[in-house]
Amino acid sequence: MSITVAADPSLSPVEFQTHPSRYRHWRLAFDGEVARLTMAVDAEGGLRPGYELKLNSYDLGVDIELADAVQRIRFEHPEVRCVVIDGALDKVFCAGANIQMLRSSGHGWKVNFCKYTNETRLYLEDMSEVSDIKTLAACNGATAGGGYELALACDEILLVDDSNSSVSLPEVPLLAVLPGTGGLTRVVDKRMVRRDRADVFSTLVEGIKGKKAIEWDLVDDIAPLSQFEAKRDEMAQALIATTPDKGDCVGVELTEVPMKRCEKGVRGDFVILKETGGRGASLTLTLPSELGPQIGDEAHAAACSWWFFQAMREFDLALLELRINKPEINLVNLRVIGNPQVALDLDAMLAAHQDHWFVHEVLHFAKRVFKRLDMTAKSFFALVDGGTAFAGTFLEIALAADRIYVLDDAETDVQLGVSMLNGGAYPMGNGLTRLETRFLGEPEKAGEVLAHSGLFDAASADELGLATEAMDEIDWEDEIRVLQEERASYSPDALTGMEANLRYAGPETMETKIFGRLTAWQNWIFQRPNAVGDSGALQCYGTPVRPEFDYNRT
Amino acid sequence: MSITVAADPSLSPVEFQTHPSRYRHWRLAFDGEVARLTMAVDAEGGLRPGYELKLNSYDLGVDIELADAVQRIRFEHPEVRCVVIDGALDKVFCAGANIQMLRSSGHGWKVNFCKYTNETRLYLEDMSEVSDIKTLAACNGATAGGGYELALACDEILLVDDSNSSVSLPEVPLLAVLPGTGGLTRVVDKRMVRRDRADVFSTLVEGIKGKKAIEWDLVDDIAPLSQFEAKRDEMAQALIATTPDKGDCVGVELTEVPMKRCEKGVRGDFVILKETGGRGASLTLTLPSELGPQIGDEAHAAACSWWFFQAMREFDLALLELRINKPEINLVNLRVIGNPQVALDLDAMLAAHQDHWFVHEVLHFAKRVFKRLDMTAKSFFALVDGGTAFAGTFLEIALAADRIYVLDDAETDVQLGVSMLNGGAYPMGNGLTRLETRFLGEPEKAGEVLAHSGLFDAASADELGLATEAMDEIDWEDEIRVLQEERASYSPDALTGMEANLRYAGPETMETKIFGRLTAWQNWIFQRPNAVGDSGALQCYGTPVRPEFDYNRT
Repeated sequence: MSITVAADPSLSPVEFQTHPSRYRHWRLAFDGEVARLTMAVDAEGGLRPGYELKLNSYDLGVDIELADAVQRIRFEHPEVRCVVIDGALDKVFCAGANIQMLRSSGHGWKVNFCKYTNETRLYLEDMSEVSDIKTLAACNGATAGGGYELALACDEILLVDDSNSSVSLPEVPLLAVLPGTGGLTRVVDKRMVRRDRADVFSTLVEGIKGKKAIEWDLVDDIAPLSQFEAKRDEMAQALIATTPDKGDCVGVELTEVPMKRCEKGVRGDFVILKETGGRGASLTLTLPSELGPQIGDEAHAAACSWWFFQAMREFDLALLELRINKPEINLVNLRVIGNPQVALDLDAMLAAHQDHWFVHEVLHFAKRVFKRLDMTAKSFFALVDGGTAFAGTFLEIALAADRIYVLDDAETDVQLGVSMLNGGAYPMGNGLTRLETRFLGEPEKAGEVLAHSGLFDAASADELGLATEAMDEIDWEDEIRVLQEERASYSPDALTGMEANLRYAGPETMETKIFGRLTAWQNWIFQRPNAVGDSGALQCYGTPVRPEFDYNRT
Repeated sequence: MSITVAADPSLSPVEFQTHPSRYRHWRLAFDGEVARLTMAVDAEGGLRPGYELKLNSYDLGVDIELADAVQRIRFEHPEVRCVVIDGALDKVFCAGANIQMLRSSGHGWKVNFCKYTNETRLYLEDMSEVSDIKTLAACNGATAGGGYELALACDEILLVDDSNSSVSLPEVPLLAVLPGTGGLTRVVDKRMVRRDRADVFSTLVEGIKGKKAIEWDLVDDIAPLSQFEAKRDEMAQALIATTPDKGDCVGVELTEVPMKRCEKGVRGDFVILKETGGRGASLTLTLPSELGPQIGDEAHAAACSWWFFQAMREFDLALLELRINKPEINLVNLRVIGNPQVALDLDAMLAAHQDHWFVHEVLHFAKRVFKRLDMTAKSFFALVDGGTAFAGTFLEIALAADRIYVLDDAETDVQLGVSMLNGGAYPMGNGLTRLETRFLGEPEKAGEVLAHSGLFDAASADELGLATEAMDEIDWEDEIRVLQEERASYSPDALTGMEANLRYAGPETMETKIFGRLTAWQNWIFQRPNAVGDSGALQCYGTPVRPEFDYNRT
């Protein structure tokens, strides 16, 4: 049905590291407490051939730069208290995801593109919530589809008041797909627009502008072009006034993560991702032998070389590699290697110095990496055997896995550990800790695990309910291999759907609704002939051919 | 890809009314406070040709009887305090949804089949929650897939302890689809099985039996065949002990609803569903001119002839007709016609006598009908013009609509009304009232509407935030027509996805998770070649052909 230029395996793998000096699509500037992030998409700068990024429309490459900018603002410019996002074009703020790109992309690429952009939008909200860096979308022109979804992820939206510029979600009427980057969810769940108005708005190609956009809670304010800059600055200052003073934080430069592509995967100083055959891969994080920085200031001085930060950045890149560049991998073995006492010492240090802004930022970065692990559509088995160090912060990696296999054998010393950070430092998207989610039906067991602070052996881990199965040495290798072959033989689609349902027991939040309800419906629509068939709307848009729909309602 | 026997339009439309005397698949027996519902599926009794319902597997026809039985227990046998669900076969309780049926069904049929069965499972839980009729799944044999999902919807599960009988969800490994009738959700969210165990269980073809099934919280108890009946009765009595004594309620017979198929739709005494051309239909409920029964006992004496009960039963049938027999209808105009004071008088009577068991049951029946409206994948416009009576209970129909158009014209008397029942009698699946959901961002407005008790005119409705748009007579007909033509021109898939996201602002519950997250993923999988393609698992199951999967993970 759809050609698959975007995911063509003959093209070079996607790189996720970038730097403002290499940005093709954004300009990032700083003026004291205000950062200005200006979308200036290079139409010729698409990540893949075959489409032009006209009218500030975006592809994955544009969003990789945006995600980079958001990280840099937090780490390199802790003095910032408000980010103003605007566009460099006349009359257009952002036209949303590029249609030609979507049209030429295979299903998996579309899905992973949307997932990544959804994460970036959530990172903007996370920055506002935990780092007091507020965001203002200064929409200086037409704000359509994904453009409006980007604005929705900001704390406030200012729209230029002229005869043309509207906010709009034209996906349903124009393209027969959903505003799937959080749009529908944020309209009713974040801005809490009345559902009938949301319904009208989401079917209105021309969108809504001016006073009506305010009245319907679609934007926070409007200003004619002549007063736009003044209003923008005023709103930014008002947002700043809601945040605490930052004191004298000095940023750290985000240097390139030393992660290299190698024959069967990627390799950093601490993290190795390696294909192991049979649709499997291993993802291994190795702890250093010593704690390193003992206080916040030492960690700050170490900056990107602080091993914990570097290891988390490497882990994040490995997850992206798995998702985007390794679709053929179905099952991933997770291992954390090293001395588990180093992990617990790290947690003691993190807990003691979590108020240091840099430690705080790194902790929240780790939180986002673990959430990315939760959201990665691969099967994960944590293998807890000799030499592993699933303790404290790194126990989260096991808790995020679909299964935890523990070697319980008299001949092998296997240690796990828990710290107070497992009690709240790394909440999942559903707002619960991974221990709370695991023991939803027996909350006292989460407490028992937390009370068991320090290191414990395999048998204790099993008693505490942390082992899916504990096996002895005789069974270990063979059983794991059989289990993996079995897992890797199942339909990857059924597994993806199953995991998306089992990983998120308990409450749903706006965040999980975006990935659960909205994304699942969008993925469905991305399969439907009315959208992606030869006569579907996504295929016909911008051509003289009118789409032909099968009008049977499902 | 899939042949579409089950939805073949040349076959006669599905009938939703039945009676125990006509059941082909269930036996319903009463013994004092215990009802026994025995699944005894007639393999030759499929609703559509082309498949055999072997091993107590089910299709829509089997579930229509189950839904009927659940209603009859509540209305005809209010003395019942526990329903025991078991199977009539040796060694098999229930094998789940029939695979040959799924294989031969078109996409829309599969989706609507699953939706209906999901509603039936929720009706079991509703019966337990609000009518104190508990349910015990007495699984006297293998309990697989949809069979276990049926058991999961019961309060407790007893499994026979023999060498063969297990509970299992083999959909993922065998069929490459999900246990989509609430299975995955209920395992982790209702029974709160640990997520890694749920993961293992949901990929284990052979399932789990005996003590391990108890240890993993998959069943509540087990008993060898020789003690099965004694244990079953003991558990039923223990469930009864948790419920209050019912007093001397006398049931009412659920007589056939006088709803007939006519040229362009269906017609009852109070409800008419009629195709209006252009993929549209009108669904109109007409109130009687007088209140009728004034107290609970009079309503009870009127039984199925009580106009409110009959009107709701007709409305329910019209919704099912729309979903299953009218896939080509995309947009439905909703109207309630009559004297709005009759509606408010009804609500005063309902409020005053809601403790009367029959009134209580009818109120909760209406609640379920309105939820079915929320869950119906058609676009609904409520048209509030001269002669309409969207008041109190019947205002819920407007509040469930995607849009509410109100005629505000000096020449026409238009009245709406609100009652205390709009404040909590009819919660949505998300646990909120429709007013609370509508005014999620401005909760005080829900209060303002409720405070405005009694009748009010179109202008007031608009001021109160109840009108999507108020129009005068000059615009009314033309504008509505244009809006409808526009709506009916959009992709029905995109609209279904959009409505599924906009209708449920606010919290998610287990119920909305089943329809939002689980169902949306299942619908996605029902489109994927790995499940439904010529070499997909659903197509190959039971044949000598092994499925061939595209192993790229999405």
